[in-house]
Amino acid sequence: MLPYELIEKKQHGNELTKEEIQYFVQGFTAGDIPDYQMSAFLMAVYFQGFSDAETATLVDTMLHSGSTIDLKDLAGYKVDKHSTGGVGDKVSLILAPLVAAAGVKVPMISGRGLGHTGGTLDKLEAITGFNTEYTLQEFRKQVDDIGVCIMSQNDNIVPADKKMYALRDVTSTVRSIPLICASIMSKKIAEGIDGLVLDVKTGCGAFIPEYKQTKTLAERLVAIGKKFDLDITAVITDMNQPLGNRIGNWSEVVESVEALQGRGPDDLMEVTLELCAHMITLAGKADSIDQAKNTLNDLIDSGKALDKFYEFVEAQNGDVSAVQNLGNYPKSKYSREVKAAQDGIVQSIDSYRLGMTSVSLGAGRQQMDDVIDPKAGITLYKKIGDSVESGEVIAEFYTDKESVLPSAEKQIQSTFEIGEESVEPPKLIHEVIE
Amino acid sequence: MLPYELIEKKQHGNELTKEEIQYFVQGFTAGDIPDYQMSAFLMAVYFQGFSDAETATLVDTMLHSGSTIDLKDLAGYKVDKHSTGGVGDKVSLILAPLVAAAGVKVPMISGRGLGHTGGTLDKLEAITGFNTEYTLQEFRKQVDDIGVCIMSQNDNIVPADKKMYALRDVTSTVRSIPLICASIMSKKIAEGIDGLVLDVKTGCGAFIPEYKQTKTLAERLVAIGKKFDLDITAVITDMNQPLGNRIGNWSEVVESVEALQGRGPDDLMEVTLELCAHMITLAGKADSIDQAKNTLNDLIDSGKALDKFYEFVEAQNGDVSAVQNLGNYPKSKYSREVKAAQDGIVQSIDSYRLGMTSVSLGAGRQQMDDVIDPKAGITLYKKIGDSVESGEVIAEFYTDKESVLPSAEKQIQSTFEIGEESVEPPKLIHEVIE
Repeated sequence: MLPYELIEKKQHGNELTKEEIQYFVQGFTAGDIPDYQMSAFLMAVYFQGFSDAETATLVDTMLHSGSTIDLKDLAGYKVDKHSTGGVGDKVSLILAPLVAAAGVKVPMISGRGLGHTGGTLDKLEAITGFNTEYTLQEFRKQVDDIGVCIMSQNDNIVPADKKMYALRDVTSTVRSIPLICASIMSKKIAEGIDGLVLDVKTGCGAFIPEYKQTKTLAERLVAIGKKFDLDITAVITDMNQPLGNRIGNWSEVVESVEALQGRGPDDLMEVTLELCAHMITLAGKADSIDQAKNTLNDLIDSGKALDKFYEFVEAQNGDVSAVQNLGNYPKSKYSREVKAAQDGIVQSIDSYRLGMTSVSLGAGRQQMDDVIDPKAGITLYKKIGDSVESGEVIAEFYTDKESVLPSAEKQIQSTFEIGEESVEPPKLIHEVIE
Repeated sequence: MLPYELIEKKQHGNELTKEEIQYFVQGFTAGDIPDYQMSAFLMAVYFQGFSDAETATLVDTMLHSGSTIDLKDLAGYKVDKHSTGGVGDKVSLILAPLVAAAGVKVPMISGRGLGHTGGTLDKLEAITGFNTEYTLQEFRKQVDDIGVCIMSQNDNIVPADKKMYALRDVTSTVRSIPLICASIMSKKIAEGIDGLVLDVKTGCGAFIPEYKQTKTLAERLVAIGKKFDLDITAVITDMNQPLGNRIGNWSEVVESVEALQGRGPDDLMEVTLELCAHMITLAGKADSIDQAKNTLNDLIDSGKALDKFYEFVEAQNGDVSAVQNLGNYPKSKYSREVKAAQDGIVQSIDSYRLGMTSVSLGAGRQQMDDVIDPKAGITLYKKIGDSVESGEVIAEFYTDKESVLPSAEKQIQSTFEIGEESVEPPKLIHEVIE
């Protein structure tokens, strides 16, 4: 077996055997197969696809490329949520303590910002002192003690994915459904969870904008989960405009705290509660999604969800007083208002470009070693379907970078398409796939 | 402009601009764009192709990645021949001195064996002392002095191709028509020639076996030549069985000398004379292909072609006495006869597998740093259309490797398909494209 022959076999559209996929992925992870052969292989997979059997083998091979977490002897049901990524998606910050407050364990491994989308770890690290570096033992212990832990990807867990993802990211081979499936599912299965709820985003701010492809992705993710004996539900949610009104790391912490105080924006609450409801239903804590939502609303109204959030921040060494006194956080050097250029109704918001603008303000990384400015971000005052008048403030942004002020203002203004037609806000929950 | 964006653009089937192709190829050649991005790009080109304009830009960019040879002030017409490669293809060894004997200058840059096909340089180096390492000045001088020089690819000429080819060779991106076109034509245009005759092989022993694709390749090569003001003719010739009866480096020198003595096998002579005739016609030394062939036959019959060969070998520091006394060359440790397994008529000979067997005997390289055994090879006693009896000797092979004797015998026997149907030998000259 030669790497060359396997590249050629996939290039010609033939199905690879289990042994061939194992040979290629293990060889690459061990450094025996060079990057340039893997990138040619990945591009061939992009064009020729992978069968369900090939994808399952890839998941299995990646899963066993490193350590897996064993949580079997921990009491209670363990459930995680994974989002395919969007703009303003701070759901994990609200969901993790809320589900833990319902008595379900949430062992969560999260990522950092990627392209135009933010990352849960970057958001949490906007809280001074917040630590996401855990050993597997520490992770287990905190999940057991307080029911929730969010840690960063550990080098020991699915090292094959880490190496493959870094290469895909620079060779335009991210947007391949089997490769996305394998990357997500190998990491989630490695967590040792019982159940998984997937938030599969669709629309202009999602990694895969087209609905048909989004649905295929959701279906294949669910099929893989089942093959690996996971309780799994995928919810296809809308990402045609940012979720909630705030984009940027500290800004999203603020909106999350407000959500846990019962003051979150409707769209953010609808998506978060839907995902949480599926999690606690999988865990057997509710008989129906409606009943689950009632339980969750009670946990917010009683303050128990917010208390769990404070407990969680404290356990991860974060500054609890900062999240209890949101107004004391440092401010950006510059803030600017963005005004509507005409009268009308917001027809659409280009979330992808809004996400990229937010990166340029300092809220994300343009290169891997860029340092994030947690204060930088954008607040939206208008969303799809809202009426605006010419000159009315539609958004505001914050940055320490003087040089980007004029371009950012223009870019944000142009992401709002304002027209005459009356528009309904997009439906948020498109489909549930079980 | 980012390498990532250009990979993505080609991946989505869009045409790249001149600046984009230059940026990518120059960046890769300079070492600024890593191998893994180039291999992903090449695989995207394999799937999405290149337009004529993109291919012309690629040729131009590769051509200007290094030095070009200026032969303008050398008197006389300068013409080269390039073959896309086949098994037993020793045409250059006969053609170069023969055309030079006709008073046309032949400045030739040749390659080494690749995969199942042999290389002109490896064959010439079977002659003790034969030197193919020239500076551009030495090359010019010998072409001027005796009308012919065959040298190896110089690091200064088209370095982009050298680097790209090494990568294509290990990432299964060789068989892409635009990439093949650019690789061949950039190197040939860099030679500073006036005319070029292409021997584009078709059939089971060719790099591109299918006729339709072969023709497309020939047409695109001719179109590029014209765009770069080259007089150019492509001849599509058959490679369904080896050319001539001998495969292996020294063995092919022997058959070439015999051809120059007027004793060459018919198929080898037919292809060689056709190609030579086009070369001297392009040079204006004949009014028609038939007239050119008469001239060439006269040069063989008179011994002038053979004298030019001796002169050429001597100029390149080769041992002339070795080619004048062919029987004195060292012999392989082992030689074995291969016998027909049944009565019948030779229906086909799998040239690709025969070429690979020849490599395993020592006549080619399995890895880049393998040392070639010039004595190793195969002699064919039967070709397509010949009648054989069970047990009759159909081939003989020579090697120093005892371990390969049983497998080589079996492999060579099985490359001959013997059946009952009467078969015509394949037509050798399929089409001429001008």
